[in-house]
Amino acid sequence: MTFTLGEGNTPLVEAPRLSAELGVRLHLKLELLNPTGSFKDRGMVVAVGRAAERGVHTVVCASTGNTAASAAAYAARAGLRAVVLTPKGATAGAKRSQVRAVGGRVVEIDGTFDDALRCCRELAEQDGFALVNSLNPDRIEGQATLVPEVVAQLGAVPDVIALPYGGGGNSSAIAAGIERAGLATTLLAGEAAERPTTFASAIRIGDPAHAANIARLRETERLEVVTLSEDELRSSWRSLAHGEGIFCEPASAAGIAALRRSPRDDALVVCVITGHGLKDADAVPDDETPAVAPTVAAILEAIA
Amino acid sequence: MTFTLGEGNTPLVEAPRLSAELGVRLHLKLELLNPTGSFKDRGMVVAVGRAAERGVHTVVCASTGNTAASAAAYAARAGLRAVVLTPKGATAGAKRSQVRAVGGRVVEIDGTFDDALRCCRELAEQDGFALVNSLNPDRIEGQATLVPEVVAQLGAVPDVIALPYGGGGNSSAIAAGIERAGLATTLLAGEAAERPTTFASAIRIGDPAHAANIARLRETERLEVVTLSEDELRSSWRSLAHGEGIFCEPASAAGIAALRRSPRDDALVVCVITGHGLKDADAVPDDETPAVAPTVAAILEAIA
Repeated sequence: MTFTLGEGNTPLVEAPRLSAELGVRLHLKLELLNPTGSFKDRGMVVAVGRAAERGVHTVVCASTGNTAASAAAYAARAGLRAVVLTPKGATAGAKRSQVRAVGGRVVEIDGTFDDALRCCRELAEQDGFALVNSLNPDRIEGQATLVPEVVAQLGAVPDVIALPYGGGGNSSAIAAGIERAGLATTLLAGEAAERPTTFASAIRIGDPAHAANIARLRETERLEVVTLSEDELRSSWRSLAHGEGIFCEPASAAGIAALRRSPRDDALVVCVITGHGLKDADAVPDDETPAVAPTVAAILEAIA
Repeated sequence: MTFTLGEGNTPLVEAPRLSAELGVRLHLKLELLNPTGSFKDRGMVVAVGRAAERGVHTVVCASTGNTAASAAAYAARAGLRAVVLTPKGATAGAKRSQVRAVGGRVVEIDGTFDDALRCCRELAEQDGFALVNSLNPDRIEGQATLVPEVVAQLGAVPDVIALPYGGGGNSSAIAAGIERAGLATTLLAGEAAERPTTFASAIRIGDPAHAANIARLRETERLEVVTLSEDELRSSWRSLAHGEGIFCEPASAAGIAALRRSPRDDALVVCVITGHGLKDADAVPDDETPAVAPTVAAILEAIA
């Protein structure tokens, strides 16, 4: 039985305008082109695949976002049931549609995110259930595969990998991949100053699950954290879209915003673009659309 | 200058449950994992890239959908302006957000789709403008690259390629790719019976631009067209999602629905999954989400 949905082997593309602006040799690792539209798929295929091989019938996670969409898709692929616990009233939107589309069960919990996570852990102790939040080490192992893939695509070892810092799972996974390969690459992670309320919903996390490991990586100077304003996040998101043609979810711009604040002269940098813009299309400002007569003159005037 | 956003080289994955149901050896070509979430990117990179090399400053198209999103992204990448003409009041949604996110200009035309297309052609006659609808032969040339890619991934020549039939541009492109490679592969194309109103919005096209070529391909038995009910489209869309874990836009299920109606015993079949489900997340039925107390007992009851 194969559980793959085609995750990994995502494109690595140049970023000519941002390279010129930032004075680095910048490449964008398009993790948004994974099957469910985020980097989570790399780890989820491992976690769900191994759960299926152990005879699990239900995978559970607490999430309103990318983790839930990924867990539900791989569960469908493996013939398992997916149960997603979410605090009552938490953001719905496209990511919840993704879960439901593939038959995942969303259950709202009358409580906080912490209550939802506690319930997940308790559920996972039942026979036939497995937890697939990033506390599951299979997730971290799968996400670490980005590192050798980037080195192979680049034909070189990057000086810096820049990425968003929400819960810290991806930073931990990539740091583990760097360590395993014996590379000197350092991490540059951008977090939102307004963690619990940021418009960059994929990093809207008040209390990072992997904070202790992030602190350890900072102490040993393998990772720098830059704390970003909403304006900085928004402006880098726009630069990726208008300047490079990459429509990502707002959180995915955190690595670029971090680079703007912590310049790395002439370094070879890979920025991980973590999630698709279609995950959060409502974040795009609602410009006024001109409505004109069907003539060339009227159209030219409207676009002048 | 490189114009690529990482289009092409999309995954080809097995479809074990649908293969068993349909009695074929079915593979899914995940064109939904192109940069802007649809197969259009393969041709758009060629059309916009060549326009940029000719010194064009503005690309124009008539579309409310995948063509517009793709044109706008590649225009941003190439440093060009994109203008999208759309009939007033036509579907907005996530695809329009995609255009605006990357700086594309949407102009509503007080008229029909045909008026919009006529205006595009007239605009394209102006100095510095180029048309990037599928009437542009560069688009067809780019989309034809799917054929050798599939043969290389499969390590074999497919007996059948199944796909949706909306305007007929993609069927024409893939037929051209088959002819160029001298293959005996035939096409199986699914169209909506309710063309102008189908819920499968990406093939909601009353008057196919490439109808004459499709008729020619049918006469020479290189292509079969199956006309599908809304129920058939909906049911195949659900099978892809629940059975295989693939969340595509509804139109993308037309190839599967066509196969259900026109069986190909034990054939080696590739079905082209054309667009991402996140393009049309509102099409997912709005199930009731249970809200329960934060206890394992309550959750188990809710998911029973």
